[in-house]
Amino acid sequence: MAVRALVFDVFGTLVDWRSGVAAAFRASELPGDPEELADAWRARYRPVTAEVNDGVRPWGDFDELHLATLDALLTDRDLDLPLAQRRRLVGAWHSLDPWPDVRAGLEELRRRCVTAALSNGHVALLVDLARHGDLRFDAVLSAELARVYKPAPEVYLTAARLLGMEPAELMLVATHPWDLAGARRAGLATAFVERALEYGPGSATRTDPEADESVADLHELAERLAA
Amino acid sequence: MAVRALVFDVFGTLVDWRSGVAAAFRASELPGDPEELADAWRARYRPVTAEVNDGVRPWGDFDELHLATLDALLTDRDLDLPLAQRRRLVGAWHSLDPWPDVRAGLEELRRRCVTAALSNGHVALLVDLARHGDLRFDAVLSAELARVYKPAPEVYLTAARLLGMEPAELMLVATHPWDLAGARRAGLATAFVERALEYGPGSATRTDPEADESVADLHELAERLAA
Repeated sequence: MAVRALVFDVFGTLVDWRSGVAAAFRASELPGDPEELADAWRARYRPVTAEVNDGVRPWGDFDELHLATLDALLTDRDLDLPLAQRRRLVGAWHSLDPWPDVRAGLEELRRRCVTAALSNGHVALLVDLARHGDLRFDAVLSAELARVYKPAPEVYLTAARLLGMEPAELMLVATHPWDLAGARRAGLATAFVERALEYGPGSATRTDPEADESVADLHELAERLAA
Repeated sequence: MAVRALVFDVFGTLVDWRSGVAAAFRASELPGDPEELADAWRARYRPVTAEVNDGVRPWGDFDELHLATLDALLTDRDLDLPLAQRRRLVGAWHSLDPWPDVRAGLEELRRRCVTAALSNGHVALLVDLARHGDLRFDAVLSAELARVYKPAPEVYLTAARLLGMEPAELMLVATHPWDLAGARRAGLATAFVERALEYGPGSATRTDPEADESVADLHELAERLAA
């Protein structure tokens, strides 16, 4: 079945969360290495969304989860920060810069296919990021619309339903193999995008041998789809 | 409370459904006046969505409702048309042209506020219309996300929730007083846009004295909001 829509993971795949969040830590009064703090905060993201999917934690959007995981991180390290500053850190996730290829790459891909964000981030957060980075999507879809987080199949299937397509007509574009695997389990095609700098220089190399496409950036994806 | 997001009704407010649907009737094998047929088909839209809201009819998206109301219209007039041609007519609602001010007007307004479609049409239909008319929104929201149709308050409140704002921070931009009244009941600000040609030359004049703004087109709305 031909791919008619590209749905994009956002954090790590389209935007560089680490630089933006580290900059926010640098601007805060917290001691410690800002990049290490950003990584430690981000490391709590998959466990906390798994708690929601397992029914152990009620639904919370990324602002709520980011605040909860930041609080837990600070507590673990015996650090304290006034609520206003913690909220500023949570707000940093709303104005992250896209990777250099993303703005033009999305435009290119939009000429060929329907394009949509499909992030675990909530709609309002995605709207802020798209406006911040001047990213154009045909639709902004989110785990929020399924009230469960990726990699649960409902998220990918909700996207297909809302776009009026069969799952196999959607291709998830993402840099995280766990997300691509979830999409495949739901019947989507997949494209792995290498983001070697997601965790800074010297990050472990990722690959996804099962992805239908593996590309260095969105321009290469556009070339592949045109081939 | 300051307006931070503009949410737009689509059929009649942003796109000229009558010309597009009449052209599709003209291209079909049906006898009769294409504009009159378009009007008669459209006249069945509010009653059928009211049936859904009243629980008399199960949820159906615009493609399903358009097919049902077309079938009823044809039956009432003792007309018959093969399913493929009926589907072509239903499909005509996916490629309607925007009014002349809409494309640039949306861009202008997007510089000031978050912009989102908020139509009774389903997401996939809105995506097709936005791509057809090269209309850029920050988000495509729909009654489909609330599974109930405007003017039910849940539709407007779902939009506010997904945009992460209070209802009063949203302004509905629409040409239909019933839609604007529904938005006001849900706590939204409202802008009435005159679309004197919605039902062709010589349509009855509409006004909405209760709207916060009344404008001739989206450019005038941008001027008003800048004032």
